[in-house]
Amino acid sequence: MGRASDRRTVVRIDGGGSTSTRRTDTLAAEEPLEIRVRPKPLAVTMRTPGDDLDLAIGFLLTEGIIGGADDVVTAQLCAGAETPNTYNVVDVVLAADVPPPATDPTRNFYTTSSCGVCGKASIDAVRTRSRFDVADDPVTVAAGVLAGLPDRLRAAQRVFDRTGGLHAAGLFTAGGDLVAIREDVGRHNAVDKVIGWAVRERRLPLAGHLLLVSGRASFELTQKAWMAGLPILAAVSAPSTLAADLAAEAGMTLVGFLRGATMNVYSRAERVKP
Amino acid sequence: MGRASDRRTVVRIDGGGSTSTRRTDTLAAEEPLEIRVRPKPLAVTMRTPGDDLDLAIGFLLTEGIIGGADDVVTAQLCAGAETPNTYNVVDVVLAADVPPPATDPTRNFYTTSSCGVCGKASIDAVRTRSRFDVADDPVTVAAGVLAGLPDRLRAAQRVFDRTGGLHAAGLFTAGGDLVAIREDVGRHNAVDKVIGWAVRERRLPLAGHLLLVSGRASFELTQKAWMAGLPILAAVSAPSTLAADLAAEAGMTLVGFLRGATMNVYSRAERVKP
Repeated sequence: MGRASDRRTVVRIDGGGSTSTRRTDTLAAEEPLEIRVRPKPLAVTMRTPGDDLDLAIGFLLTEGIIGGADDVVTAQLCAGAETPNTYNVVDVVLAADVPPPATDPTRNFYTTSSCGVCGKASIDAVRTRSRFDVADDPVTVAAGVLAGLPDRLRAAQRVFDRTGGLHAAGLFTAGGDLVAIREDVGRHNAVDKVIGWAVRERRLPLAGHLLLVSGRASFELTQKAWMAGLPILAAVSAPSTLAADLAAEAGMTLVGFLRGATMNVYSRAERVKP
Repeated sequence: MGRASDRRTVVRIDGGGSTSTRRTDTLAAEEPLEIRVRPKPLAVTMRTPGDDLDLAIGFLLTEGIIGGADDVVTAQLCAGAETPNTYNVVDVVLAADVPPPATDPTRNFYTTSSCGVCGKASIDAVRTRSRFDVADDPVTVAAGVLAGLPDRLRAAQRVFDRTGGLHAAGLFTAGGDLVAIREDVGRHNAVDKVIGWAVRERRLPLAGHLLLVSGRASFELTQKAWMAGLPILAAVSAPSTLAADLAAEAGMTLVGFLRGATMNVYSRAERVKP
């Protein structure tokens, strides 16, 4: 299996060009992972190696292909055809009663109309697919607890410290305890890895929990959180319009710009307590 | 056509929960765009509305589906089936001699083997597809010029200032003049928009130019830069291993961590002059 980071030679330029030194630098690893749902390849994602089974299972769950761990008979890392052997394929066998995934190229985005997509249609499609109700989750979280989470996420990022180049997703209890953290060059992968871990641990739905992401909150990340039954999604950076709209539709609490002691709450703000 | 940003009501919490005020906040817009290559939908990308023709044409170019403006007969924004009309579809008609794109779900990643993908195979595939040689581009850029570009990119970002939530890609001359800038919630979209603009202006290959991206440099962004014939790619944040490897293979200069007067050069550092 590949490593999460690797070293490359680099020329470091300082003082606007006045000094130039050759040294080695540690970079976040990025390699393709093919997710196969036997017998066909389903998707290829560019990811940081590690936690690949979590990534594959999380992807299948958040894409609505599986509903839980029982829908998967086996999932294993298998060797690619290349030399050196890179183990960049996860081979999944679904249970016999699970419909095989469609492989329409637009499938990932839940479009159904033949010449027409818009934000509202996408939101409708996600609502239809999510198995979990998050609107009625009675969980609350203290603003002071939320304010402390970015530092806790950052402190738990092992690979970022070496490379400065990874997104993180952290699953926390409402009391602020870190349950699981995953890192990846792709922020959607980091979220799929955390959710896939929870699927494999049979912890879904993730009622009473919150997910913190190190970057922005997009439609796609909000959708993944809903698919896992998460009532609260918090992001260090900005959300998009469609992320805010989807969270409101789901009854999910969406927190953005979580920095220092300040934050913006875009939906279901009553879950955030003084 | 949708707007690049939109307003939402938000609860602003400060002092770790001691104050809480309701106000309106401007968010970066995110909506799906369906790219149709008649007669079939090819891809859906979540993007910030605006410059949609640039985005579609840039996507087709960087995916290797078209080689230039002459391969496109017409490209037009068309209305989706939804109400209100959102204009989230770009309808493209290719020239008669251009092979229609494959719609294999793994197509975007240039995988060819039936059960095996790895970084090296991906790099080989891109090398085969890029029409432009960037290795022999004699361009050089002064380190002092490079050091000043992030501030110039940031100053030119119109939507970021309102939303705090957009990636940017800027095309510059080697002398540091800004040629074109595009913003998007997706960094790959921002790059496709800039390249698509250049395709439509018949400026490819972009020899003698450099592309600056506001975030990290991934394999995918490096690939897009190579497909457009760009000899220099600079990123404000970290590159990944595969980005560095692809740049080295292409003979492209890859600059990362371009911050203040310091930067790391991962390949072809001789193009950066004191």
